[in-house]
Amino acid sequence: MTLVNIVSSINIKGGVTSPKSFFSGGTHCGLRRKKLDFGWLYSSIPAKAAAVYTQNAFQAAPLKVTQESIAKEQKLQLVVVNSANANACTGKEGLENARLTRKYASEEAGLPEHLVAVQSTGLIGVQLPMDKVETGIRSINLESQDAASFEQAILTTDTCTKHASVECEIEGKQVTIGGAAKGSGMIDPNMATMLAYITTDADVSQDALKSLLKKTTDKTYNQITVDGDSSTNDTVVVLANGAAETSELDEFHPEWGAFEEAFTKLSEELAKKIARDGEGATKLIEVQVEGAATAADAGKIAKSIISSNLVKTAIHGADPNWGRIVCAAGYSGASMESEAVDVYLGPIQVVSEGLPLDFDEAEASAYLTQSDIYIKVKLEDGTGAAQAWGCDLSYEYVRINASYRT
Amino acid sequence: MTLVNIVSSINIKGGVTSPKSFFSGGTHCGLRRKKLDFGWLYSSIPAKAAAVYTQNAFQAAPLKVTQESIAKEQKLQLVVVNSANANACTGKEGLENARLTRKYASEEAGLPEHLVAVQSTGLIGVQLPMDKVETGIRSINLESQDAASFEQAILTTDTCTKHASVECEIEGKQVTIGGAAKGSGMIDPNMATMLAYITTDADVSQDALKSLLKKTTDKTYNQITVDGDSSTNDTVVVLANGAAETSELDEFHPEWGAFEEAFTKLSEELAKKIARDGEGATKLIEVQVEGAATAADAGKIAKSIISSNLVKTAIHGADPNWGRIVCAAGYSGASMESEAVDVYLGPIQVVSEGLPLDFDEAEASAYLTQSDIYIKVKLEDGTGAAQAWGCDLSYEYVRINASYRT
Repeated sequence: MTLVNIVSSINIKGGVTSPKSFFSGGTHCGLRRKKLDFGWLYSSIPAKAAAVYTQNAFQAAPLKVTQESIAKEQKLQLVVVNSANANACTGKEGLENARLTRKYASEEAGLPEHLVAVQSTGLIGVQLPMDKVETGIRSINLESQDAASFEQAILTTDTCTKHASVECEIEGKQVTIGGAAKGSGMIDPNMATMLAYITTDADVSQDALKSLLKKTTDKTYNQITVDGDSSTNDTVVVLANGAAETSELDEFHPEWGAFEEAFTKLSEELAKKIARDGEGATKLIEVQVEGAATAADAGKIAKSIISSNLVKTAIHGADPNWGRIVCAAGYSGASMESEAVDVYLGPIQVVSEGLPLDFDEAEASAYLTQSDIYIKVKLEDGTGAAQAWGCDLSYEYVRINASYRT
Repeated sequence: MTLVNIVSSINIKGGVTSPKSFFSGGTHCGLRRKKLDFGWLYSSIPAKAAAVYTQNAFQAAPLKVTQESIAKEQKLQLVVVNSANANACTGKEGLENARLTRKYASEEAGLPEHLVAVQSTGLIGVQLPMDKVETGIRSINLESQDAASFEQAILTTDTCTKHASVECEIEGKQVTIGGAAKGSGMIDPNMATMLAYITTDADVSQDALKSLLKKTTDKTYNQITVDGDSSTNDTVVVLANGAAETSELDEFHPEWGAFEEAFTKLSEELAKKIARDGEGATKLIEVQVEGAATAADAGKIAKSIISSNLVKTAIHGADPNWGRIVCAAGYSGASMESEAVDVYLGPIQVVSEGLPLDFDEAEASAYLTQSDIYIKVKLEDGTGAAQAWGCDLSYEYVRINASYRT
């Protein structure tokens, strides 16, 4: 792709404040014992905003309030996030608390309520202790550029913060896209909640921002899995504040391709970081599918393989168990010519035209002891391609999730 | 239901030879080191036959040959099954071997080839050693009523045989339905293959038998899960030989309801036995959903809960983690009014109208230490009801499946 030259490689030290005129920070308000538990993300310019939310029928209260805010003007200027409490399955009181959080934050920041989004992650079924949330809100410092504190404040039992940025050139100007995410930590009795925040100083039309986020989410965040359980709180929010002084970008802009590439690259990086830090994970697994009938079919096959407990345990045990990969492809629901399937474990081809090769098992097993595992599946049904990311299934996953809540 | 009086309760000592004029046995032909590895099931009368097969794109060779046989006259008289080798991902040679197996068996039994079905379960991607299969075929004794040997011969790493029978009265005559199944054992590098064989001495029209099997499979075998990986070899075969001398039954027969109830009861019993013996399982989990918009929605919700790794690990750890149950219901894809959901763990209600109750956690945890766990989810979206069965996710599951093949 010729565009690659004008998109920088991922800056793994970057984050949500890498683009111009974004500010963020985090504090401890008492929801967790010691760790940071309340964060904020602020744009000094009202930013065009879009978000995608979990499809779970039990969508948590803050997601509803965030949707209300964005619906008004498709803009946001402040996002506040608490960890330790998901405000999910909390009924009317939960919804009132989410609205109250927004109200207090808007007052603290001197912003209209509809420019404020609220987010929560953590325990399900417990009402938000509003006195502590208020303490958090009163600590908001809109001039802070302490992205690291924001990244920490949104974690549950993630073992590390997740952030990156990427740059591209549009109209001769440097445009930056930054992001922070949290993944598959566990807070009892909750499930892994995925949150991601993306900021950019490009100006992007609201429609283009919305469709780009949807498209990118399908290719990245929706293609990761830790255990197949999609939470009540999953959300990705993007803010585009225009501080880089580009014209308003959309799909018809001659340099849209560069922006889309950079945006996708950043999202892929955050998604991979979430997968790598899955509960109990010791390895990142990347599955690449090529030659499927359609991109959607390729996506299904890749997701099916990455979601298979049998594939995940085999990789945990460094077992080059090609049969499980082929089987998971086979039950993905995608159509395929089963006699034209090739499978590779990293550089080692293990299946050719649906039949096993006489590969060196010791060499393949040694490959699977690495921390980054690539599985490639090549079909001959068309030109559809997709990727998916996940992690191995370990004893530690069972230990984490079978432990009685304390 | 008034029909219940004319259907007997499950006879857990019964099996495939409980109905009249069925014979079966098993032998050791050398595919496994010591255990029985070759079984047969024979009806002295050509039996009307139907079967359902895995939807996996990599359907194994014997499934194709069994389909060919049944297609000819919708009848079968002999089913031969080998374990230790799945004859899957074996290409043209595998298909030839499956056809050869059928040919040899038909010669041995003096039957036309199309009355013979062949079945395999075990290792994927290895050609059948036909000399051993021939040894098995030469051991077939059509007069044997040693159902126990058949049940053993079809196992892989199942920890126990699975069989039952049930009786009902049709036209004043006793009709018996018997069955044998194998489940979620593991033979490297294979995945859990589910096989079930159902026999009955009722006479049933071919169309009615086919649609009854399909309907029952959707409610029973398709509602169990161990790890969500559906194999290349999954098959359920039913043989109805008419030896009980009923008239030909179909949906319009006044006593069809009794037959259907008995058939479903037997299938549910076999399905539960498979779930209970899932890899590493220490508990059988039954999920019952009531009040869904449709039966299909109820089925989706029940299957989603039973498939959730987070629910499975929580139950393994005796954690009354209602949030994970509600969450899995929420992402099932079924429509639901989330504020009208009740959840029960056995006798203990833990969620009312989508909100957690202040239940006794110690009591609920104690309930979850039992070997049979019932989860009930009540909705207010309609009258759709369904069940699903599964097992807990344990360290042992990871150990079994992460162990390098030896």
